[in-house]
Amino acid sequence: MNLLKSPLRSLLHLWCLCVSLVALVAEPNGVLGQTNETVWLESWNDCPTKRALVEYVGRVSDPNHKDFVPVPERIAVFDNDGTLWPENPIPFQLAYAFDIVTKRAANDLEFAKEPMVQAVLNKDIATLTAGPKHEGLLQVVAMTHAGMSTEEFSKSVSDWIQTSKHPRYGRGYDKLTYVPMQEVLRYLRQNEFKTYIVSGGGADFMRVWSERVYGISPEQVIGSAARMRFEMRDGKPVLIKTLDNLFVDDKAGKPVGIQMGVGRRPVVCFGNSDGDYEMLQYTTIGNPRASFGAIIHHTDAEREYAYDVAPKSTGKLVVGLQEASAQGWFVVDMKSDWGRVFEE
Amino acid sequence: MNLLKSPLRSLLHLWCLCVSLVALVAEPNGVLGQTNETVWLESWNDCPTKRALVEYVGRVSDPNHKDFVPVPERIAVFDNDGTLWPENPIPFQLAYAFDIVTKRAANDLEFAKEPMVQAVLNKDIATLTAGPKHEGLLQVVAMTHAGMSTEEFSKSVSDWIQTSKHPRYGRGYDKLTYVPMQEVLRYLRQNEFKTYIVSGGGADFMRVWSERVYGISPEQVIGSAARMRFEMRDGKPVLIKTLDNLFVDDKAGKPVGIQMGVGRRPVVCFGNSDGDYEMLQYTTIGNPRASFGAIIHHTDAEREYAYDVAPKSTGKLVVGLQEASAQGWFVVDMKSDWGRVFEE
Repeated sequence: MNLLKSPLRSLLHLWCLCVSLVALVAEPNGVLGQTNETVWLESWNDCPTKRALVEYVGRVSDPNHKDFVPVPERIAVFDNDGTLWPENPIPFQLAYAFDIVTKRAANDLEFAKEPMVQAVLNKDIATLTAGPKHEGLLQVVAMTHAGMSTEEFSKSVSDWIQTSKHPRYGRGYDKLTYVPMQEVLRYLRQNEFKTYIVSGGGADFMRVWSERVYGISPEQVIGSAARMRFEMRDGKPVLIKTLDNLFVDDKAGKPVGIQMGVGRRPVVCFGNSDGDYEMLQYTTIGNPRASFGAIIHHTDAEREYAYDVAPKSTGKLVVGLQEASAQGWFVVDMKSDWGRVFEE
Repeated sequence: MNLLKSPLRSLLHLWCLCVSLVALVAEPNGVLGQTNETVWLESWNDCPTKRALVEYVGRVSDPNHKDFVPVPERIAVFDNDGTLWPENPIPFQLAYAFDIVTKRAANDLEFAKEPMVQAVLNKDIATLTAGPKHEGLLQVVAMTHAGMSTEEFSKSVSDWIQTSKHPRYGRGYDKLTYVPMQEVLRYLRQNEFKTYIVSGGGADFMRVWSERVYGISPEQVIGSAARMRFEMRDGKPVLIKTLDNLFVDDKAGKPVGIQMGVGRRPVVCFGNSDGDYEMLQYTTIGNPRASFGAIIHHTDAEREYAYDVAPKSTGKLVVGLQEASAQGWFVVDMKSDWGRVFEE
């Protein structure tokens, strides 16, 4: 295979290297861009989180720094609802379930008579969330997330996300991702981090659009999931969705989901709610690698929702906000830290 | 950031492209190497499987071919025991469990008295595998795979694989991978496939050494797994291994494991046993993408083991071998198709 003699090849390599370097420097997204936060995090105002993130990334990607993290270990995990896109007035996956139930009820009068279908139609959240395990909601999830093949479910989600609109913003749910967080995803990937979604939402629900919307491939989506059933139907293999052995990828389940799906401890974690506290602990406490943790704090009633400004619950979010300073977790004040929230 | 003016940049790009192409052609592992099976599959004799694999890879990586598969969808799945390394005289993970039990029994006389520990010490496989669910074996698995943190377990596996020796070959288990299959892994990765292990073995067991031994990162290892328990111990987060909600990544479980861990349908599948039949079906039957399936057939008593030459069971392997031709699955005859089996 050596078409060219060795000294000539060496010369060519040297040439190639020089020319490539010049070309990279001349590119807006080239080598110099990697450390230029004005390009990568342009929707962020100057704030402690932005400064710390840039400093952290610079440190762990510098092979001469004691905190250097080898590329395969650069795992960054992100909650989805409330961290990468809103979770109000209801989590978007629940909006999907309600829309599907509503649509089916219009064509199926027997189905429409069922009490929990009635509760959906009447927006009777109290009935749906009654009981310690929110049995009503679980019934709605079962109606809309089980009994069909993964392909049928994917198609249903894909159709929905391309046609439905958020009640407040009047645009598709997939057009409501937080621009500053999209920038963090790209900035980390540019610095050879692998970005994962680790969400209480359904893995199969997110995987339909995660690559298009966040640039996160299905393999890097970890979420709640039940055990599917493999079947041959009409001579073709299908996976049927069930609710058996449901794994809830939330709270203490998140580190478990990470171990099952990644098998490595993350070094970067962004979350926002009660459900993300243990994932923050797992990423940052006692990690032999230098790590970075942040909480998105919903403080902006004007552009988004200010639902956790003064949380009254005794949930883990309150604990997380209280502990943040001691743990070295950064708290993102959406109102003051983000120059914009959504794509214009 | 545009240090150089646009026409100069364009010229530089053109230069860079030309020089890079020349350099690649001049490299033994360069562009031309990708289609040169003598470099990538050198331990394979000329045989139908080798020819078909090279033809398949050429077809699906040619953007002008109707069977072109976009890079993100180039998912290749491999069984481990019997496909990438041997599974005789017993599966290597079982050898690990037996070694751990034996070592502990030497230091703990109470432990040594337990009936299933006695069965291990006496190599009494009949007792261990009695009952429909092999309760004895399950006890041994519980003794050796549950109750410790993932970190403790990883260290134990890592120590074992670096010190234990295979009884027949007298070398470390990790030195017994099949060279021809290592070549297939590298050949596919060279052509931008993502290679996954999908094994009935424990995910946590394989992830300890999969990157070093196969070049397969922990994220791309799918295996049997139980639900871990997140805990804070001495102020530090740990994941404790249990046997709760055990997911057995075998037989009809393999397509389920693939959907949970990858979320995409594979296009290449190599397996060898009853446990791989459904994964072969899922990869090749009714797949809208061009696919490739192969069964490693253990026919070589001299260099390896010839345990499935004339299988007497009515298991899925027999069905698979019978159906192979009709399904387009290739059967690898280890004795005649592989020029060598192990690293010398």
